[in-house]
Amino acid sequence: MDDIKIICFDADDTLWVNEPYFREAENKFCNLLKEYKSKDEILNTLYKIEMDNIPLYGYGIKSFLLAMIETIAEVTNNKADINMVNKAIGFGKEIFSKPIDILEGVKEVLDALKDRYLLVVATKGDLLDQERKLYKSGLADYFHHIEIMSNKEKQDYSKLLKHLDCNAKNFLMVGNSIKSDIIPVLKLGGNAIHIPFHTTWIHEHVEDDLIPENYVKVENIKDVIPYLMAVEKLQ
Amino acid sequence: MDDIKIICFDADDTLWVNEPYFREAENKFCNLLKEYKSKDEILNTLYKIEMDNIPLYGYGIKSFLLAMIETIAEVTNNKADINMVNKAIGFGKEIFSKPIDILEGVKEVLDALKDRYLLVVATKGDLLDQERKLYKSGLADYFHHIEIMSNKEKQDYSKLLKHLDCNAKNFLMVGNSIKSDIIPVLKLGGNAIHIPFHTTWIHEHVEDDLIPENYVKVENIKDVIPYLMAVEKLQ
Repeated sequence: MDDIKIICFDADDTLWVNEPYFREAENKFCNLLKEYKSKDEILNTLYKIEMDNIPLYGYGIKSFLLAMIETIAEVTNNKADINMVNKAIGFGKEIFSKPIDILEGVKEVLDALKDRYLLVVATKGDLLDQERKLYKSGLADYFHHIEIMSNKEKQDYSKLLKHLDCNAKNFLMVGNSIKSDIIPVLKLGGNAIHIPFHTTWIHEHVEDDLIPENYVKVENIKDVIPYLMAVEKLQ
Repeated sequence: MDDIKIICFDADDTLWVNEPYFREAENKFCNLLKEYKSKDEILNTLYKIEMDNIPLYGYGIKSFLLAMIETIAEVTNNKADINMVNKAIGFGKEIFSKPIDILEGVKEVLDALKDRYLLVVATKGDLLDQERKLYKSGLADYFHHIEIMSNKEKQDYSKLLKHLDCNAKNFLMVGNSIKSDIIPVLKLGGNAIHIPFHTTWIHEHVEDDLIPENYVKVENIKDVIPYLMAVEKLQ
């Protein structure tokens, strides 16, 4: 392995809690529509609409909010009144006001790495919302660069590497999504560490046969430090 | 004046048509609600809701769409049915599918400047939507860097200049909004050329006494070239 020069962290569910807030909103949303359909049916419709809208809306809370509204129309067969829509908007807006709950070990790890590597954040989602979370987290100063991406596929990382003037082999990605944080970086010849989070959006699930064999998986972000120590020793 | 090294273009209504598509959607929207309120009252409510939501939602089509939906609830006093919401979503989605109508003179100017200056785009709005427009426009290759900003205030340009490693005095901003493209750049000691567009969002209007005295205003983007020739001659 070559020298790691840049360590890039995913943000949502890698640095701080995110997905559980969406699950909480979904539960309230299914409860709102429980007279019309079962929870599974509502969630399937919501997910299908979210996916159909991604080419237009991209990722983030606003897209989720708009998908809830379209789901109300579909699930109630256009019989809902506007109060149901108002409630769904409320569930979405609540997500914006959630506290930034930094995951255990994050600050400790950033402190240990900040003088030795260039630290970067690469995250999907709403531009303003991600900036707001980073600012509220108090972590912004650790990072040389913040990249808010419309997507996290191979070509998106390729652009990021070009922008950072970094070879893939000198780049380490750390994140909770095998699909968005691990596979595209390994495909480019970069390094990646997977830290699973207890809640994963269905969109980020990967079929078993697509999971790369040789990727590194750790339990806690703190395990990144012994991993890097071992790599350096091998040089 | 110092040497200009980087020329930064606003995108919407500077490189291509944008605002008229929003006005078109607003007209349809007011027509949809005409039984409830006058056009002026509807537009005032819509604008107020858009402004109230900016700290959460930022700028762009999704924010506009969500504001239309909240406006329906308010204007109809929660009496609307979901079909009205469906129609508003349709008006918003139509904006995404508009062709990219590049303004007269843009390609000619970019061709003339591309080998002499570093060209950059700085635009507000939805991340994915702005990327899509730039890609569809066929103009992306002219630009060294594309900055999609959550806001265009002095501190946002300051970050951009730092990122581009450029002194304000070597930076020229070209755009159609005095508020977002001209004032903040002049405040930083940079250069700015204003090219008015026939339609301006009310949010971008500036009180007369806040308009800087010494800013440069031209009629067409093509006038940027003789301006730069004159500046170079004066060196």
